[in-house]
Amino acid sequence: MKDDCIFCRIASGEIRGLRICENGYALAFLDTAKDYDGHILVIPKGHFTDIMDCPEYIMKHVMSMVQAVCRHLTEDCGYDGTDILSACGAAAGQSVYHWHVHIIPRKKDDGLGGTGEWPSPAGAKEDLIRMCEKLRMP
Amino acid sequence: MKDDCIFCRIASGEIRGLRICENGYALAFLDTAKDYDGHILVIPKGHFTDIMDCPEYIMKHVMSMVQAVCRHLTEDCGYDGTDILSACGAAAGQSVYHWHVHIIPRKKDDGLGGTGEWPSPAGAKEDLIRMCEKLRMP
Repeated sequence: MKDDCIFCRIASGEIRGLRICENGYALAFLDTAKDYDGHILVIPKGHFTDIMDCPEYIMKHVMSMVQAVCRHLTEDCGYDGTDILSACGAAAGQSVYHWHVHIIPRKKDDGLGGTGEWPSPAGAKEDLIRMCEKLRMP
Repeated sequence: MKDDCIFCRIASGEIRGLRICENGYALAFLDTAKDYDGHILVIPKGHFTDIMDCPEYIMKHVMSMVQAVCRHLTEDCGYDGTDILSACGAAAGQSVYHWHVHIIPRKKDDGLGGTGEWPSPAGAKEDLIRMCEKLRMP
């Protein structure tokens, strides 16, 4: 744990995150930036700067959670697809230096972008607490 | 293999791709869309529509290759970071229905986007063959 890292503090429970699911290695929680409705972040519980810095076996645990969350969003929560994105390094637009994978749930004609476009942050409309209750995994 | 799938045909060698690396499960090759310099796609060799459709153990092989390519780009090829992106489903902007993970190599001040932005396809300037020789893994 890195004391000045906000994602370490969420992983440890020191800061209460809007948790979607978790296990011993990884945690999925709602991003509170309110840029996209249902914007989820999946992180390793240990502190690793980015995917390059993360040991391979922990990276695989994180990606298994990404896969499970994507299946949950489309199979159980009424979404039509997902975008998965991760920026590695300041040059790539990374802002928090604890590896995180973004999952943006998508619906047909949601206006966030079409074929070959990355989703544009149109702003979230839904209440974060209600969204967390809707998307939380059993 | 799905006969009408272009990525299956690249994986099988029927269409010659600009290969960066490969193993029994996964293949990394240069995207020829010329939207970003060094734009790499990592795919499973088997045909799976997206990450949700892909068996977990194969997904992990694909992501291990993504991790290895990202390390290679920053440690050996002079890049400062990478963006990793994958669209799952037409609603999310997916255009080829064989799961693929995009890797966009990034340099400081490359003009593709800043903090919290996804890279904008500014157009590739480098020759694809020379870029493939530069980025190919030993």
